[in-house]
Amino acid sequence: MSHRHHRHTLHAHQHHHGWNNANPPALRVAPGESVVFETVDSSGGQLSPTSTLDTLRALDFSRVNPVTGPVHVDGAEPGDALAVHIEHFAPSGWGWTANIPGFGLLADQFPDPALHLWQYDAGTLAPAAFGRLARVPLKPFAGTIGLAPAEPGPHSVVPPRRVGGNLDIRDLGAGTTLILPVEVAGALFSVGDTHAAQGDGEVCGTAIESPMTVALRFELLKGAAPRFPRLELPGPVTRHLDSRGYDVTTGIGPDLHGCARDAVSGMIELLVARHGMQPVEAYMLCSVAGDLRVSEIVDVPNMVVSLYLPRVLFD
Amino acid sequence: MSHRHHRHTLHAHQHHHGWNNANPPALRVAPGESVVFETVDSSGGQLSPTSTLDTLRALDFSRVNPVTGPVHVDGAEPGDALAVHIEHFAPSGWGWTANIPGFGLLADQFPDPALHLWQYDAGTLAPAAFGRLARVPLKPFAGTIGLAPAEPGPHSVVPPRRVGGNLDIRDLGAGTTLILPVEVAGALFSVGDTHAAQGDGEVCGTAIESPMTVALRFELLKGAAPRFPRLELPGPVTRHLDSRGYDVTTGIGPDLHGCARDAVSGMIELLVARHGMQPVEAYMLCSVAGDLRVSEIVDVPNMVVSLYLPRVLFD
Repeated sequence: MSHRHHRHTLHAHQHHHGWNNANPPALRVAPGESVVFETVDSSGGQLSPTSTLDTLRALDFSRVNPVTGPVHVDGAEPGDALAVHIEHFAPSGWGWTANIPGFGLLADQFPDPALHLWQYDAGTLAPAAFGRLARVPLKPFAGTIGLAPAEPGPHSVVPPRRVGGNLDIRDLGAGTTLILPVEVAGALFSVGDTHAAQGDGEVCGTAIESPMTVALRFELLKGAAPRFPRLELPGPVTRHLDSRGYDVTTGIGPDLHGCARDAVSGMIELLVARHGMQPVEAYMLCSVAGDLRVSEIVDVPNMVVSLYLPRVLFD
Repeated sequence: MSHRHHRHTLHAHQHHHGWNNANPPALRVAPGESVVFETVDSSGGQLSPTSTLDTLRALDFSRVNPVTGPVHVDGAEPGDALAVHIEHFAPSGWGWTANIPGFGLLADQFPDPALHLWQYDAGTLAPAAFGRLARVPLKPFAGTIGLAPAEPGPHSVVPPRRVGGNLDIRDLGAGTTLILPVEVAGALFSVGDTHAAQGDGEVCGTAIESPMTVALRFELLKGAAPRFPRLELPGPVTRHLDSRGYDVTTGIGPDLHGCARDAVSGMIELLVARHGMQPVEAYMLCSVAGDLRVSEIVDVPNMVVSLYLPRVLFD
């Protein structure tokens, strides 16, 4: 059904696990229309504001990262681009960050589960307290946002792919336009995995995982599929973070992935020494607020990856 | 000789090629003292404001990337940290950017030499014209800044290493403090390879290469050597770039290096299509103004690297 010029709503129960171009559309819209999506958090509702480490230990991975949808966009065909205008987030006010054993950039160094539960003001979006250790500026965005791939059958939601998905690009916030390549008729768009804050890299594997309502508007660009997803950001993206500057640690070597690991390890050591937090707390703080940047990728054989941690966390 | 509370100057001819802890100090200073360094551009003076592609073709690689120094810091010993307070840059007003065959992230795709010569206002540091194609905001910094390594003998200046060197971190500008691990008595500090602007990654292999005078102050932190170089940034670092937002391209896959290549290729395609520039021009513009960020490094097996190109370039 297409209700042109009306706002559609997809409710939280209208979600699916993984990607599959055989999933029936939950909604059909025309280009130009807007849709409000209620999302479930990335645990699929298994975690709540009263969860404990036991909840985390019992996590059923078959239920993680549900996405709300799919939305069939009339006229969308393979080779087109779907422009997704990200209009608005209505956050829930609670969230969680976890170290999940086996998952994350330093999974080998952090084998034990850890969980932090967040409460934040969904109206003001004032920085959220990380216990007494830090206050994290918030910027809601959708971690998983994408289309059904052309390849038939079920596909894990975990890895992002050409058609988007679990991109975890922290600038997929309000005001951003995401341009995705369409691979199947109708595009079959879904969104979920909303985050109240995340640093570039999402190094421990989780952000401030937080259910939200997301308002999006769709536009169809015929024959304009990019090779990979592309974003248009209308303005500055770090002004909620950068006023006090940054502490930066680096990793240097012939492998970018190893450089990133060393940069994060260096920041964890610094935070433990300077602020007396536990290593896993520092690791989670880096994940929700630290940015991994490729400082240098050409001075063979060594590259430099830097972790930028904003000092405003400790104001 | 140590002249406490006096400002020392090292002149451009007081440079060396490569790192070697047997190089005799050009100057001895006490902790707390400042030094003004005149630097040579990274071609070692082979390129000038009147150079052509022929100059580039005849480039003698044994002369590239000279660094001014070394400075012996009294009392510095292995295991200490040298804090380098970056105080001031006096830029020269000219610079060059080149695609040097065999060098750069997309060297396989750009086999032919290319050269752009820049003139900029060294007083106002107003954005520098990239022909009629774009205007690049400037932020001078030192690309190569480091210490002699413990390992004896000569070492190439090209790769950065634990003791710093060719870090090419674009935020090594005025106001930043760089903290380096000391590996030899006296630290043996040198600096060069000054840039008027560069994006994170320096993807084509060169920035706006520009000779400058650099004022630095040294501080010794006994026994505080970090594992890798660390930076302290006193304030925002992208406000000269971010007012108009960004266009962002991505690369997605199981290899970070490949992701970075795809992100840069995507931006080159976009710039060629939108602004009618030549691919090699787009590549050089990405190098001087585009930032490579690790958006996601945990959603196995695929990672996301993004290239952020500031829209202010086209104001």
